[in-house]
Amino acid sequence: MNAEIIAVGSELLLGQIANTNAQFLSQQLAMLGINVYFHTVVGDNAGRLEQAVKTAQTRANLIIFTGGLGPTKDDLTKETIARLLDRRLMIDEEALRAIEAYFARTNRPMTENNKKQALVLEGSTVLKNEHGMAPGMALVAEGITYMLLPGPPKEMRPMFTKYGSVFLRRTFSLSERIESRVLRFFGIGESALETAIADLIDAQSNPTIAPLAGDGEVTLRLTAKHQDEAEAKRLLDEVEAAILARVGRYCYGYNDETLFMKTLERLKEKGWTIASAESLTGGLFLEQLTAVPGASQVVQGGVVCYTNGVKEQVLGVPRPLLEAEGAVSEPCARLLAENVRAMCDADIGISFTGVAGPDPLEGHPPGTVYIGIAVRGRNATVHRLTLSGTRDAIRIRTAKYGCFFLLEMLAADC
Amino acid sequence: MNAEIIAVGSELLLGQIANTNAQFLSQQLAMLGINVYFHTVVGDNAGRLEQAVKTAQTRANLIIFTGGLGPTKDDLTKETIARLLDRRLMIDEEALRAIEAYFARTNRPMTENNKKQALVLEGSTVLKNEHGMAPGMALVAEGITYMLLPGPPKEMRPMFTKYGSVFLRRTFSLSERIESRVLRFFGIGESALETAIADLIDAQSNPTIAPLAGDGEVTLRLTAKHQDEAEAKRLLDEVEAAILARVGRYCYGYNDETLFMKTLERLKEKGWTIASAESLTGGLFLEQLTAVPGASQVVQGGVVCYTNGVKEQVLGVPRPLLEAEGAVSEPCARLLAENVRAMCDADIGISFTGVAGPDPLEGHPPGTVYIGIAVRGRNATVHRLTLSGTRDAIRIRTAKYGCFFLLEMLAADC
Repeated sequence: MNAEIIAVGSELLLGQIANTNAQFLSQQLAMLGINVYFHTVVGDNAGRLEQAVKTAQTRANLIIFTGGLGPTKDDLTKETIARLLDRRLMIDEEALRAIEAYFARTNRPMTENNKKQALVLEGSTVLKNEHGMAPGMALVAEGITYMLLPGPPKEMRPMFTKYGSVFLRRTFSLSERIESRVLRFFGIGESALETAIADLIDAQSNPTIAPLAGDGEVTLRLTAKHQDEAEAKRLLDEVEAAILARVGRYCYGYNDETLFMKTLERLKEKGWTIASAESLTGGLFLEQLTAVPGASQVVQGGVVCYTNGVKEQVLGVPRPLLEAEGAVSEPCARLLAENVRAMCDADIGISFTGVAGPDPLEGHPPGTVYIGIAVRGRNATVHRLTLSGTRDAIRIRTAKYGCFFLLEMLAADC
Repeated sequence: MNAEIIAVGSELLLGQIANTNAQFLSQQLAMLGINVYFHTVVGDNAGRLEQAVKTAQTRANLIIFTGGLGPTKDDLTKETIARLLDRRLMIDEEALRAIEAYFARTNRPMTENNKKQALVLEGSTVLKNEHGMAPGMALVAEGITYMLLPGPPKEMRPMFTKYGSVFLRRTFSLSERIESRVLRFFGIGESALETAIADLIDAQSNPTIAPLAGDGEVTLRLTAKHQDEAEAKRLLDEVEAAILARVGRYCYGYNDETLFMKTLERLKEKGWTIASAESLTGGLFLEQLTAVPGASQVVQGGVVCYTNGVKEQVLGVPRPLLEAEGAVSEPCARLLAENVRAMCDADIGISFTGVAGPDPLEGHPPGTVYIGIAVRGRNATVHRLTLSGTRDAIRIRTAKYGCFFLLEMLAADC
């Protein structure tokens, strides 16, 4: 069994976006044990799309399409496949109702071309779109399985993981289990991590160990193949234990977990609330924390104190301290954490003050950062960091270090 | 003239990386006026690579390869093309000296397989690698131009812009100018925008008009071709004026500009400062605004008032108001905007209160949002929105609507 992924959209051929859909689907198919032999990108052009489909039919028995399911004249995927397979397009009543409801809910008039989105290939299994309007579909014709998914990643990804992969498991009676687990690390560099477990990586066969670095984090993907699910899991447990025995201190979670999710989870377990005072991060820490559903049990709120005026007037940092020590200083971070905690009546106050760049501030180079943590009834602690990278990289890594220090403190506190 | 980009590498088919090389080259080729009709990705497999090249030979007269030029057994691109075109591979002395110098400089012994990187196709133009070891190459055979570039973006990009594009300009005697401009819209849906300018899109030939939707925004890419650069720009101006005459109200900027950049720019021009009170957005608005360098001239700070306690104690919303009207209400939004403005001593206060979901709040469904805007010395205004989508989509669109309403107000104020 082998697959080809065909992305349809002139915006890809113009380089406006990268084909991240093919990357996502390739990862998902690898986990299902399906080989991907080709990716193709073709524009919104019926003739060339037809040509791409015909080529794929000669070399793949699973063809997954992304894009071209929308309401405009440019959207040609369904129509082209209908013609090639000699199938009719029919209105899917459930999809049509969902589209109508979407327009009613957003108080906008539904234009006629939007009905086209409810058309599906005759005899296909409809894949529900829970994050947009155009439904997906899947069908088997003359030994080849076709799956049509929408182009926007926010619609395509949940549709595939919830409905598309179930269709493939059933259609191909997939039995060999591919179990995969991602270990997530923060506070350790990629080469330091690889050096620490070099012998384990060299000895790998099943499970395999694949490191990947990005956004200041390092992940290790462990993948085991076995007929028996429990045995595959046991193989993963074994190699995970060997890795964590060496670098467990830096491992904060699994798979799609984020430092912000873990921080929220640990605070919730402890029954503690939090407030933040953010200077260089400009609200990024709290924004990331409140992006997690259920944040309201833990997050009280906070102050973005971008100017010294707000640090002084809203958060009560005395002007003499700001003048003598500077805003980028240990005592300022300490006071910001203590005062925001008290002001928002939270159990923990955390503060971020420093230089995001591109210019130096108060004589400190970009990347100079102080993070203060104040716990109700205890003395505040302050961590000093020297980070490198762009303005964006410094901001996000600062916020992540906030989580890292909080998790360390909460772990020591148990 | 039309091109196909073939990326070679199993890591792409496993989804370990996205094919950003194809995106980069597509942008570069568009600027040279070369149409890209297909992208293909194929693994490190001689048979399938050969098949991909043969398919490309039937439909493209420029084939650009990325990847597969390295020292390992997996690197097959040169060898496969040499076989297909019946050309020999020969050592390029300059490349060999560069590789030897690289190993000498890094104090590492040069293994025998590294010599392979200095092999180039007989009769090809060598493209120097100034950021790595494997040289690129280009040649014309039987009416088709082949260009082989290394896989690592850090090597490929400078090689293409410095040497590859020069080769193409010379080979294809490129003189036609391609001018491109992106118009960015917010507050109007993709199909409403397309309906409003359907006749312009239908009549398009030069310039072309290509719509794209994403993250609650719609963009139109206008592309004009002409021998004369000034005339190409005039064609763009003409179609832009026709579009803006109909939907100009929703157009906020060009190319890579964001709503946050424009908001910051307009505020800076006006000499106004801003503060925000954020409930459902949790700091997202200010975080996005402070992500733009130079934000400190405009942003005072703000309060993230996630709980009613913070709304009451920090921002002075009276408890009786919260109890009678709720936090998700017009009067609460108004008071939050007014009070955060006063508290941070800013010219503008903006507030965001509403329901991000997934659960309803105070009886309101997710997507119910109030945005308050208070200007020093004026009565505050409040906008009510009904948004749909995921928690993340609602939060980011709320913050963007904040910019949209601010820009509208600032434009009316001029």
